[in-house]
Amino acid sequence: MATHKLLLLPGDGIGPEVMAEVQRLIDWLNAQGIAKFETEQGLVGGSAYDAHKVSISEGDMAKATAADAVIFGAVGGPKWDSVPYEVRPEAGLLRLRKDLGLFANLRPAVCYPALAEASSLKRDVVEGLDIMIVRELTGGVYFGEPKTITDLGNGQKRAIDTQVYDTYEIERIGRVAFDLARKRRNKVTSMEKRNVMKSGVLWNEVMTAVHAREYKDVTLEHQLADSGGMNLVKAPKQFDVIVTDNLFGDMLSDIAAMLTGSLGMLPSASLGEVDSKTKKRRSLFEPVHGSAPDIAGQGLANPIAMISSFGMALRYSFDMGELADKVDAAIAAVLASGLRTADIKSEGATPASTSQMGEAILKEL
Amino acid sequence: MATHKLLLLPGDGIGPEVMAEVQRLIDWLNAQGIAKFETEQGLVGGSAYDAHKVSISEGDMAKATAADAVIFGAVGGPKWDSVPYEVRPEAGLLRLRKDLGLFANLRPAVCYPALAEASSLKRDVVEGLDIMIVRELTGGVYFGEPKTITDLGNGQKRAIDTQVYDTYEIERIGRVAFDLARKRRNKVTSMEKRNVMKSGVLWNEVMTAVHAREYKDVTLEHQLADSGGMNLVKAPKQFDVIVTDNLFGDMLSDIAAMLTGSLGMLPSASLGEVDSKTKKRRSLFEPVHGSAPDIAGQGLANPIAMISSFGMALRYSFDMGELADKVDAAIAAVLASGLRTADIKSEGATPASTSQMGEAILKEL
Ligand SMILES: CC(C)[C@H](C(=O)O)[C@@H](O)C(=O)O
Ligand SMILES: CC(C)[C@H](C(=O)O)[C@@H](O)C(=O)O
Repeated sequence: MATHKLLLLPGDGIGPEVMAEVQRLIDWLNAQGIAKFETEQGLVGGSAYDAHKVSISEGDMAKATAADAVIFGAVGGPKWDSVPYEVRPEAGLLRLRKDLGLFANLRPAVCYPALAEASSLKRDVVEGLDIMIVRELTGGVYFGEPKTITDLGNGQKRAIDTQVYDTYEIERIGRVAFDLARKRRNKVTSMEKRNVMKSGVLWNEVMTAVHAREYKDVTLEHQLADSGGMNLVKAPKQFDVIVTDNLFGDMLSDIAAMLTGSLGMLPSASLGEVDSKTKKRRSLFEPVHGSAPDIAGQGLANPIAMISSFGMALRYSFDMGELADKVDAAIAAVLASGLRTADIKSEGATPASTSQMGEAILKEL
Repeated sequence: MATHKLLLLPGDGIGPEVMAEVQRLIDWLNAQGIAKFETEQGLVGGSAYDAHKVSISEGDMAKATAADAVIFGAVGGPKWDSVPYEVRPEAGLLRLRKDLGLFANLRPAVCYPALAEASSLKRDVVEGLDIMIVRELTGGVYFGEPKTITDLGNGQKRAIDTQVYDTYEIERIGRVAFDLARKRRNKVTSMEKRNVMKSGVLWNEVMTAVHAREYKDVTLEHQLADSGGMNLVKAPKQFDVIVTDNLFGDMLSDIAAMLTGSLGMLPSASLGEVDSKTKKRRSLFEPVHGSAPDIAGQGLANPIAMISSFGMALRYSFDMGELADKVDAAIAAVLASGLRTADIKSEGATPASTSQMGEAILKEL
């Protein structure tokens, strides 16, 4: 059996608590002989700043590069609100994405039937919702240069951020979206603001070309990002796969996540290109929720998004689709049994702490 | 009585139909001697392209500059999807905003009680909702240079858009937001992505400074634009005034509009700086909805957003707040009476065409 090397980066806030539940699952898989994972731990975000005055150390970056997959918790919190920009907690995550070349961020927005009531949207609008948002993750305004604040004198400053996209960056994220659509409901909606942004014009042109050349069997549709956002709120079930740039993807995937009423349940995968020799790709898996400093350390956090992110690692990095299905089924079964962490509590449900939820999922497995 | 000069730019799609109802209202106000409006008409968007191969002619720009207020319908439609980028319909609107210096876009998102059921959100989440989104409208990624597509050879192109903000641009939009909050529920939420964008860092810094210097009596809160979007969907009533940049404002105001279930009802005002001599400010008023080419020319469009935009003109450009209140009350009364255009139809309601709705509002006045 192949040994897989994992780097666990719990991060800040509730990160360590939810990561502990993944560690528990890994230990069990190893003990049962179902898989062979070798894990290392590292620091990222505020916890790395506290230890080394950086958002991630060179040593941990090297471990991330050497690992077969990175499992990431969450970063940030008011404690680090005034640390210098370059070493703010988020910088560690952004560096991991950029340096590992993780250009494709997969964010499923699924409404668990047992939780449809938790949504602020009407049940019939969201029940059964199953969207995959494919967000470009290493380009656009997040990384473009210049990215500066200049003092103009007279009390005036000028801030500049630059949105840059090259053809190849749009092509490769397009392919990820079309490939995923083929295994789903065969429809891709591409979102940009071509009526205002040149990057939107190029985005639209390249998506159309990739589709015409390689994916004629998939339905491609274009929406402006603002009306796309409206449609997400009005009638989200019209979507299958949505592909969009880094900044629109940030906004739209968070909104889609919120629609489901299951923010504490949603995983994400960030993938690099497939190496032509090793056939492997770099990858990082993280929950969509943040570090939730207000509830950290109290055993209140929902570990499902984190466990489900590990499930995505099994599926996308280790070709263990069947095991991933079993993890998903175990989560669904535990929810159906009525067990609930505080974020998804409801009348008549059984309250559970972070570790009780993790244990229940393991038992179900 | 002072004479006020209006330029009416109906634009494309349903623009002319809904503008006709404003014209009807203006004619009546003139005939009754309640006010004295002089109106001119112009072309913008696709209709200007069809006539002159531009998105707005120099002649109409001159009229807009000379007018006391511009009343704008909507632009765009599939007919002009492949006209050159520089003369696409939206370019006319963007030029009006930029050349008239309309930096402050006010977008109220109000949920009419009679329409709460039309929202995709649960009634208790949106009933009574009353948010004012203040969007910066002449800066940011919409207008920053460079804004280019370059051919790199080898089938590769590079697209660049530039987000630029100077201190004074953030200060003046901040003041608009704080001033509005003082007449409302005294709370401003500023949204940016300071964890990723330098313009977000400056935005946050300048808002904080303006607040500390001039508006200590108003509550100021900062949210990241992605979690702000989530909060809009989850619990929108937490907001009073939201102030944000051009691109985030585009996305967030559309989402807020959709929450209310009243997209066809929502107006907007775009305001310039107050001239220190004349005490006047340039202004443009337009509905939040688009040109809806699919229903154009059939008398199906809802004229309320357009009429209500004219109501904002009365309030913000002509100091006729009382008359504006009467227009708002007439709209509410007609809705309460059960009259509905197709977009807001509901069981038991009386169906109305565009002109029947316009007439009913006038009769109520
Ligand atoms: C933490 C932050 C830098 C990050 C982003 O903006 O990408 C987060 O919001 C996300 O969506 O993963
Ligand atoms: C028509 C388009 C250029 C415009 C914008 O993006 O600003 C519209 O979406 C709006 O919000 O007024």
